Amino acid sequence: MDLTDIQDPSFLKDLDQRQLKALAQQIREFLIDHVSKTGGHLSSNLGVVELTIALHKVFDSPQDKIFFDVGHQCYTHKILTGRANRFDSLRQYEGLSGFEKRTESEHDVWEAGHSSTSLSAALGMAVARDLNHEQYHIVPVIGDGALGGGMALEALNQIGSEQRNIIIIFNDNNMSISENVGVLTQNFAKLRASKPYNTFKNDLKTALNRNNVGQAVLSGLQNMKDAVKKGVIDTGVFGEFGLEYLGPVDGHDIKSLIQILNVAKSHQGPVVVHVLTKKGKGYSYCEEDKEGVWHGVGPFNPATGKTLSSTPTGYLSWSSVISETLIRLAKENKDIVAVTPAMITGSKLEKFFAVYPERSFDCGIAEEHAATFCAGLAISGKRPFISLYSSFLQRCYDQINHDICRMDLPVVIGIDRAGLVGEDGDTHHGVFDIAILRSLPNLILAQPKDAVEAQQLMAAAFAQSHPMALRYPRGTALYNELPQAEPIPIGSWSIVNEEPDHCCTVVTYGPDVDKVVSKVLTNSLPVKVVNARFFKPLDEAMLMQLAEEGKPVIVYETDMLAGGLSSAILEWAADHQADLTIRRVGIGDTYVPQGSLNKIRRLEGIDILSLFDVIKEYCGS
Amino acid sequence: MDLTDIQDPSFLKDLDQRQLKALAQQIREFLIDHVSKTGGHLSSNLGVVELTIALHKVFDSPQDKIFFDVGHQCYTHKILTGRANRFDSLRQYEGLSGFEKRTESEHDVWEAGHSSTSLSAALGMAVARDLNHEQYHIVPVIGDGALGGGMALEALNQIGSEQRNIIIIFNDNNMSISENVGVLTQNFAKLRASKPYNTFKNDLKTALNRNNVGQAVLSGLQNMKDAVKKGVIDTGVFGEFGLEYLGPVDGHDIKSLIQILNVAKSHQGPVVVHVLTKKGKGYSYCEEDKEGVWHGVGPFNPATGKTLSSTPTGYLSWSSVISETLIRLAKENKDIVAVTPAMITGSKLEKFFAVYPERSFDCGIAEEHAATFCAGLAISGKRPFISLYSSFLQRCYDQINHDICRMDLPVVIGIDRAGLVGEDGDTHHGVFDIAILRSLPNLILAQPKDAVEAQQLMAAAFAQSHPMALRYPRGTALYNELPQAEPIPIGSWSIVNEEPDHCCTVVTYGPDVDKVVSKVLTNSLPVKVVNARFFKPLDEAMLMQLAEEGKPVIVYETDMLAGGLSSAILEWAADHQADLTIRRVGIGDTYVPQGSLNKIRRLEGIDILSLFDVIKEYCGS
Repeated sequence: MDLTDIQDPSFLKDLDQRQLKALAQQIREFLIDHVSKTGGHLSSNLGVVELTIALHKVFDSPQDKIFFDVGHQCYTHKILTGRANRFDSLRQYEGLSGFEKRTESEHDVWEAGHSSTSLSAALGMAVARDLNHEQYHIVPVIGDGALGGGMALEALNQIGSEQRNIIIIFNDNNMSISENVGVLTQNFAKLRASKPYNTFKNDLKTALNRNNVGQAVLSGLQNMKDAVKKGVIDTGVFGEFGLEYLGPVDGHDIKSLIQILNVAKSHQGPVVVHVLTKKGKGYSYCEEDKEGVWHGVGPFNPATGKTLSSTPTGYLSWSSVISETLIRLAKENKDIVAVTPAMITGSKLEKFFAVYPERSFDCGIAEEHAATFCAGLAISGKRPFISLYSSFLQRCYDQINHDICRMDLPVVIGIDRAGLVGEDGDTHHGVFDIAILRSLPNLILAQPKDAVEAQQLMAAAFAQSHPMALRYPRGTALYNELPQAEPIPIGSWSIVNEEPDHCCTVVTYGPDVDKVVSKVLTNSLPVKVVNARFFKPLDEAMLMQLAEEGKPVIVYETDMLAGGLSSAILEWAADHQADLTIRRVGIGDTYVPQGSLNKIRRLEGIDILSLFDVIKEYCGS
Repeated sequence: MDLTDIQDPSFLKDLDQRQLKALAQQIREFLIDHVSKTGGHLSSNLGVVELTIALHKVFDSPQDKIFFDVGHQCYTHKILTGRANRFDSLRQYEGLSGFEKRTESEHDVWEAGHSSTSLSAALGMAVARDLNHEQYHIVPVIGDGALGGGMALEALNQIGSEQRNIIIIFNDNNMSISENVGVLTQNFAKLRASKPYNTFKNDLKTALNRNNVGQAVLSGLQNMKDAVKKGVIDTGVFGEFGLEYLGPVDGHDIKSLIQILNVAKSHQGPVVVHVLTKKGKGYSYCEEDKEGVWHGVGPFNPATGKTLSSTPTGYLSWSSVISETLIRLAKENKDIVAVTPAMITGSKLEKFFAVYPERSFDCGIAEEHAATFCAGLAISGKRPFISLYSSFLQRCYDQINHDICRMDLPVVIGIDRAGLVGEDGDTHHGVFDIAILRSLPNLILAQPKDAVEAQQLMAAAFAQSHPMALRYPRGTALYNELPQAEPIPIGSWSIVNEEPDHCCTVVTYGPDVDKVVSKVLTNSLPVKVVNARFFKPLDEAMLMQLAEEGKPVIVYETDMLAGGLSSAILEWAADHQADLTIRRVGIGDTYVPQGSLNKIRRLEGIDILSLFDVIKEYCGS
């Protein structure tokens, strides 16, 4: 069949096992082919092809609510719900989202780019359904990494006591992005190994052969319950949370999946179906990947598995610039330890973990715990560095506030993927961190314009004793290891382009500093450019100087305007009764969609051209 | 003995069981006597008198790190570490903190006013200790309510896999502030009932009688392990998390406590000591309290248990104003449901829970889950109201952002205890919420000046379909039920004092609006007063009018200045090139300490007198 002919999942009802298997193969080829061209999440999607087919075969979407925690593993779901024809536009501006998107289809009932939300959402949906006396199934699919996240465990706690009908599909691939950590993982591994479902399956098969499905399901369940009671089946942590447990089942065996999902369908109360899947299934390069380099990928050659993009010579990812610097600092300072919430690869901490295994800690998908763990380390004299993606840092705002800043503990926070990230879209753009962190007492908040400043700011961070956060974007920077990185004085900005008789001043930060300078010089515009590398504290002497100069100041931000750098400058000007004319260029009151950085920066009016439209108001044409 | 003579806990080493018991009695009387005069946390402190004595008898603080999750149950700890003489100043400005405070004593090694942080901190401390090759005990005390919080479970996940020496004291009183919820509670109840420690205790006793303590401990532990292996002892969820489990033990039996703590002390790896305590132990009014009214109390008569303060006639707490309004709205709108993270009593939702039990949900101490649970409810057509204390709302910032605002779901958030709260101090002041919420697209953020507006804003919240947060402070408001509450138009401010020829305008919000008007009228000052009841969206027409008037505008805020209302107004003025002279009165870049509201408002320069010093600059004297 042509996958682009699929309108909705109802066609699955008529397919037999052989046809479903063929469909799985076809979808798998489709995914490898398309993602190799567009880039996207591959491994996790290859892992749930059969599972997603089985879910749509057994349940009736959109009446039944099937949805995915995090959501980047929803590609097969998108194909089966009539969106195969849009895969050429995957993750592009106005194209198909790489996550579930409610505006895209009635089959997308929940959206998430952050982990561990699905069970809370499922309980909310179940309560609403029951209050309305409606009958349908609620089927969240959650991975083993996400299940270790605190809010998923909080949800299990209430799901176990509420005992409403929810079918939790536990997609256990023993990995999150990279290998999972934590004792729950060991717990799950024990369950994986136990394979008690086989016996049950045979019972069920026999019963099914008698063509008495209702009775089969009942007797199957009864056997299951008895077995649990007898302690034959280990229900692991699920039993402790008051959940019925079915499985484990081979997540690539469609027949078994359909059988077990039918059992779950007739179960009363919350039930966990433990599905064993293999990330990257069917594509050897992905299957062999333990570090998660195939989690999210750019375009690649499907035959060789080689990526088509490459980092220019001399350039490193910003994450690498920071972690290389950390390794060098850690050599001098034995108290430095590195902490990550399940982002070793994304944050490029592999090398630190290899060089300093005793001083490296992967806390799993657990940003809250990870941040307060750092507070505990710092209170005992260690100098923790924690790398947090900006959008995930949102999850430990209170821990940064209450546990780190309030006690003024010297934790260094690397805010990775700060600013717009592009194709991952609204759930991943890291544009709120300045606004939420700027009001925290004791915190120092900075961003380097290049890899030289990155090294100097990292040196500054560990040379002082307050909490300090250092943000840096997705992408790369020209990197040369400094023989000796001198700490940049806290709160100091720098003038990067001085003009004797300038028409206006642009105050900006991060990699845009040099872009603006370059554009100003190319256009021979007499524009002064200031590198506001500290958001907190501000460089008050520099601001006073700008006020005295009396020229318009354009604050060019690539993050939320509300509460951002311009807001800080306006506050300073008001409090010092300084006569500063401030123009603001930045992201307005909106969630920015997915798309290439060029595209969405243009869309939001924060590209260099938009900035120059404003500059020209003051500097002629 | 005179409790005020205690310098440090070393004196406990010389006391025998009888003397320790007498000490417990003396401390209990001291607590009831002092808290009846100063107010404070009573029930939780009465519950851990013997436990705290036993901890300081067995361990050596400050080398050993004994600390309390949340920390409001640390009063006995304060007495035993030489602070009894400061209890007259409990919770007052510059007085003894009601929580642990590092600046107060070397025995206070961790500070927290928010729940569930102690295990993450403990793991951080344990890692630091081990990296330094030091030897001491780390002994966090955590309650059963706090243990259900997501970050505590995240910490257990890593503690179980790291297997470092940590002695977790599980203070199980089967309550948090009010009765606990969730399946873990049932799980703990099962453990409570199992009482397997008795057998073990006898074994240990016999061994101890042979005066061979080392051997006793070893054989005791061996028995314990065997028993676990045989499945005789149910280790509940702790076993699933890879933790050794000791207990349960009677938390008011000092002798047993000392014995079991000695066993824990010689254990290798993480161990949980399950201690059964009774909240309010020894004071009948507290013991009988199921709703948590004795959790935090004002001054009371110890003989009668009657509170000495009373709400003036006609006044209700702000929480009650909101919940009374919610009950009336819920009568008309069957889709309204109420959600709270373990704050039924604090948020005054008892009546709603009684009237609409099917539509009421206590999620336990689990703000993250609770917020996303609301998103799930809203996505399925319900109209959830969630009450969150401002300082605890910080814990679900990402859920409000990613799960509620990003999907533009109509969740109504009641931000209770907004602004300075007074005696609970820096962990509880609700002064950050405007700054962190103001940059969220789709969100409407408002605060009523009085109970009339509270009813009208609640009506407005449920009459529209975006997420809306409504903040209200601690304290009371004059309440009259409106026959019909007309929704206030979204984004509209109001002029509450108009002067034909005013010298300046004060823009403020909440109960300060009427206070300012009253003071202005008393002083016959020609000051215009504006009620900025919406922080987002702003009343742009009103702002334009203020700009046209050309008079100085004083923005009077009682929250963080950075990112607050004045910041929003400055941003608007910059973007509209409006010529507004803004003066700002609000909280600077600091964590505000504990104290009476009058005292700390004065200290921070945000009392009405400080405001009038600024007004007088523009209006003469």
